[in-house]
Amino acid sequence: MKLIIANKNYSTWSLRGWLALRGFNIDFDEVELALFTESFYAEIAKHSGAAKVPVLVDGDIAVWDSLAISEYVNDRYLDGKGWPQDVAQRAKARAVSAEMHSGFNALRNEMPMNIRGRRKISPSAACLNDIARIDQIWADQMKEFGNEGGWLFGEFSIADVMYAPVVLRFITYGVALSADAQKYAEQVMNSPAVQQWISESKSDTSIVSEDEAGVEKA
Amino acid sequence: MKLIIANKNYSTWSLRGWLALRGFNIDFDEVELALFTESFYAEIAKHSGAAKVPVLVDGDIAVWDSLAISEYVNDRYLDGKGWPQDVAQRAKARAVSAEMHSGFNALRNEMPMNIRGRRKISPSAACLNDIARIDQIWADQMKEFGNEGGWLFGEFSIADVMYAPVVLRFITYGVALSADAQKYAEQVMNSPAVQQWISESKSDTSIVSEDEAGVEKA
Ligand SMILES: N[C@@H](CCC(=O)N[C@@H](CS)C(=O)NCC(=O)O)C(=O)O
Ligand SMILES: N[C@@H](CCC(=O)N[C@@H](CS)C(=O)NCC(=O)O)C(=O)O
Repeated sequence: MKLIIANKNYSTWSLRGWLALRGFNIDFDEVELALFTESFYAEIAKHSGAAKVPVLVDGDIAVWDSLAISEYVNDRYLDGKGWPQDVAQRAKARAVSAEMHSGFNALRNEMPMNIRGRRKISPSAACLNDIARIDQIWADQMKEFGNEGGWLFGEFSIADVMYAPVVLRFITYGVALSADAQKYAEQVMNSPAVQQWISESKSDTSIVSEDEAGVEKA
Repeated sequence: MKLIIANKNYSTWSLRGWLALRGFNIDFDEVELALFTESFYAEIAKHSGAAKVPVLVDGDIAVWDSLAISEYVNDRYLDGKGWPQDVAQRAKARAVSAEMHSGFNALRNEMPMNIRGRRKISPSAACLNDIARIDQIWADQMKEFGNEGGWLFGEFSIADVMYAPVVLRFITYGVALSADAQKYAEQVMNSPAVQQWISESKSDTSIVSEDEAGVEKA
């Protein structure tokens, strides 16, 4: 099984695809392509018409998109354990995951991930709204599950695959969180999987200049 | 079970939530709220912090987001029959559905749904790219399943929940499709569920002025 991703310092969706495997201790090989290059698009085109990473290639099967990969892994390798087992919790986990997957565009545009950088910006009202909603989700879930596993729904789940990368953005841009939401940020930063990605992103010295305007070294 | 939606003439995501039930012949009640009004946000806030329709309220459980609703219905009421039964086809159906759920922003911005209207625009390059990708998905699937059920993966599936509404946009804006993709558009237009929505959208005379610039009556 092979996961195609892009530059570890910048690509949040790659990190999500990677966490959908590594976060559940599933073995896989990794292929890193450089974002926005010709060879990136040429390689992806062999497996997907969507022209984006991550792409999971599992024998004859190619799955693109971080959420579709997560559901595939849940179906095929986790026997449904990728989501909470309680039906109401599972519905909520899918709903908040779908919010991340389809939304928060202001946040995503104004605060691109750059793990090794630090940057000050003046967020738009829409971006502040996005931050407030994410803080609310994390805080609500920590009130419920902070002492029971510590992930959004207790045990690590696909909801964490979706939200863990946002913690790295918040650190780069110095976003202050409520006390409960901060507990989640710490849970994410203490995870061996996330620490592995961070350390690999630091040794991956490739530069995506589109994402470097105004960025200082951490 | 109650589905909260918005104005039928305009709200593509509402149509998706609605098709996730009606398309599989599941009974439900319907509550229509007027987009962008105070009472819209007040009513939604009772069930979801995401401030968007559709929302499905099933007893104690509230699920928001069309894709999360689709997965919930698949889990709870369809015994997995909402997706193709073959694992490779299911992976592909989830991947193309995720593309719709998370992407095609240019198309969504430049061609808002307006079922009873007709409008001419000059699409951006990004919007033309979105159209080309959608045409490719529909045409590829019709080559495979056009004579075997006629939906994207043969039988009606959640992939159709995601893509059927796009057919209505393409009609409003007069988008020309390849012959194979056009077969899919016809399949959608011949469906009783879609015809029911269209007829209800015509009797729903509410106006969202944000979506009416440059629009003529069909
Ligand atoms: N909805 C997709 C988004 C994937 C995505 O936007 N990936 C970016 C990298 S983080 C990409 O491949 N960009 C290349 C491009 O857009 O040309 C997912 O969840 O995987
Ligand atoms: N990802 C969501 C998108 C939902 C969405 O954007 N709904 C629109 C109506 S079509 C909405 O509620 N807009 C109200 C607002 O954004 O204030 C889904 O799949 O359901």
